[in-house]
Amino acid sequence: MTAASAGDTGGPDAMTHDAIAHYLVSAFPQVFTAHAIELTAADGGTATLTLTPGEQHLRPGGVISGPTLMMLADAAAYAALLSVSAAAKMAVTSNLNISFLRGAPAGGAIVQHATVVKRGRRLSVIVCEAETAEGTLIAHTTTTYAMPAA
Amino acid sequence: MTAASAGDTGGPDAMTHDAIAHYLVSAFPQVFTAHAIELTAADGGTATLTLTPGEQHLRPGGVISGPTLMMLADAAAYAALLSVSAAAKMAVTSNLNISFLRGAPAGGAIVQHATVVKRGRRLSVIVCEAETAEGTLIAHTTTTYAMPAA
Amino acid sequence: MTAASAGDTGGPDAMTHDAIAHYLVSAFPQVFTAHAIELTAADGGTATLTLTPGEQHLRPGGVISGPTLMMLADAAAYAALLSVSAAAKMAVTSNLNISFLRGAPAGGAIVQHATVVKRGRRLSVIVCEAETAEGTLIAHTTTTYAMPAA
Amino acid sequence: MTAASAGDTGGPDAMTHDAIAHYLVSAFPQVFTAHAIELTAADGGTATLTLTPGEQHLRPGGVISGPTLMMLADAAAYAALLSVSAAAKMAVTSNLNISFLRGAPAGGAIVQHATVVKRGRRLSVIVCEAETAEGTLIAHTTTTYAMPAA
Repeated sequence: MTAASAGDTGGPDAMTHDAIAHYLVSAFPQVFTAHAIELTAADGGTATLTLTPGEQHLRPGGVISGPTLMMLADAAAYAALLSVSAAAKMAVTSNLNISFLRGAPAGGAIVQHATVVKRGRRLSVIVCEAETAEGTLIAHTTTTYAMPAA
Repeated sequence: MTAASAGDTGGPDAMTHDAIAHYLVSAFPQVFTAHAIELTAADGGTATLTLTPGEQHLRPGGVISGPTLMMLADAAAYAALLSVSAAAKMAVTSNLNISFLRGAPAGGAIVQHATVVKRGRRLSVIVCEAETAEGTLIAHTTTTYAMPAA
Repeated sequence: MTAASAGDTGGPDAMTHDAIAHYLVSAFPQVFTAHAIELTAADGGTATLTLTPGEQHLRPGGVISGPTLMMLADAAAYAALLSVSAAAKMAVTSNLNISFLRGAPAGGAIVQHATVVKRGRRLSVIVCEAETAEGTLIAHTTTTYAMPAA
Repeated sequence: MTAASAGDTGGPDAMTHDAIAHYLVSAFPQVFTAHAIELTAADGGTATLTLTPGEQHLRPGGVISGPTLMMLADAAAYAALLSVSAAAKMAVTSNLNISFLRGAPAGGAIVQHATVVKRGRRLSVIVCEAETAEGTLIAHTTTTYAMPAA
């Protein structure tokens, strides 16, 4: 992505990394606590989550499951939106499109990046990429979030 | 959908409803047992799953979470493929596109339908619709599965 | 689709078939006139367009091109929205996801159906299916339209 | 994107920029000649097309039309595949998902980038971004191409 589109920078009510991490665990324990997902970065329209896979995240063959990757992309997109504005707390996923590129074997962390490419008053679009710890691209996701009525 | 495209009918190695239900629980306990998902129908290219939501399926506001619906659509698509041919056991999701149409409040079952609209040697496409028990459409999903090498 | 979700019925400012057809040709000649697309049905949230393919619509191999089908799905979705409310004239496509199921050989018309499955104040979602004149399903598309600010 | 996923480098039968440009114009005149699209770059899994919009590319309001952007993304994805291997000549689009981020006003060129993020024996996935000449991101597209049987 070119610099001009790398992400929408945070606005006046952008949330800090710590504030986002705290909020995610308290509001979405069924995602962040239950799956031991860590917010490793969040700033100005981009966020990174790290998942250390457990049994619940695998499908036959010892590969990270599709639903795990879908949840992770959706969660990272939400975190990226919060890094732009706290108003995004009430945003909801409108559409999610995920392409699974390669199987990710269990045994290593999954690093999920998300970048807000459009932060609109009504709709936001976030591009997300999941990688292994070694940097191999596992999945590419585009999510659309409906922003709360002002 | 017109009759001609309603679904790909089962082939000679199509799995029966009972066989599919048994296989899903034994091979994917992290989905079917952990989430108490029931295969309520499976025949000739179509399948229906029913989910009775629990705490783990909700997001703030008492609404069924996006990841729950994504998992459910993906699982129903897989079941529909098995109703065409047991060879689909090794098929994997290649792409999933979900549109969330309305929030589904907790308290009622979610009925997830899936219909195979293309059963190819390499790729299959399944259209999935999630409804409340009253028939209100909650989400529309199109999934593409990569079929195992013959 | 169940009856409850078959489509959003037209509201008080729903446009008639003739009114939609006239509007489409006058406002979008580069689509409807240039491609000789006919609005064969439009009522209460559903619309049907028919395309008689010409040289410009084919790709090598004498098959209807992908861009032709994408344009047709997008146009039918818009027509279906107009059959719900004239206010949709200013709606714009936010997202489009198309799955190409089978090649459609040149020589026959393409019939493009569209059904509004969600008509929101901010976002609408339309499901579209393209078929040959014989009823063979060619493509399945889900489009999201951003509705104009009230 | 990390370096490890920036694109699949060209193989032994990768086509040169000039060879791709010549092939595209000769095989797909209804796209490249009719729309005066120029291949401005093509190498090792990435390609760039430039479109100088004309009347046929606009929708009411003087904005580049959705179908124009869909065609452009699909074409760039194909060109990027050819820069990996000439065998991709027979590849066909299986799925395309486009998110329209901002309207692009007529009067300036549209620069369409495409990067192959997965080049498989059966399926390839290409991520495409359309920008104005000033670098403003207009649309983000993920396409899946079915590769020809070996």
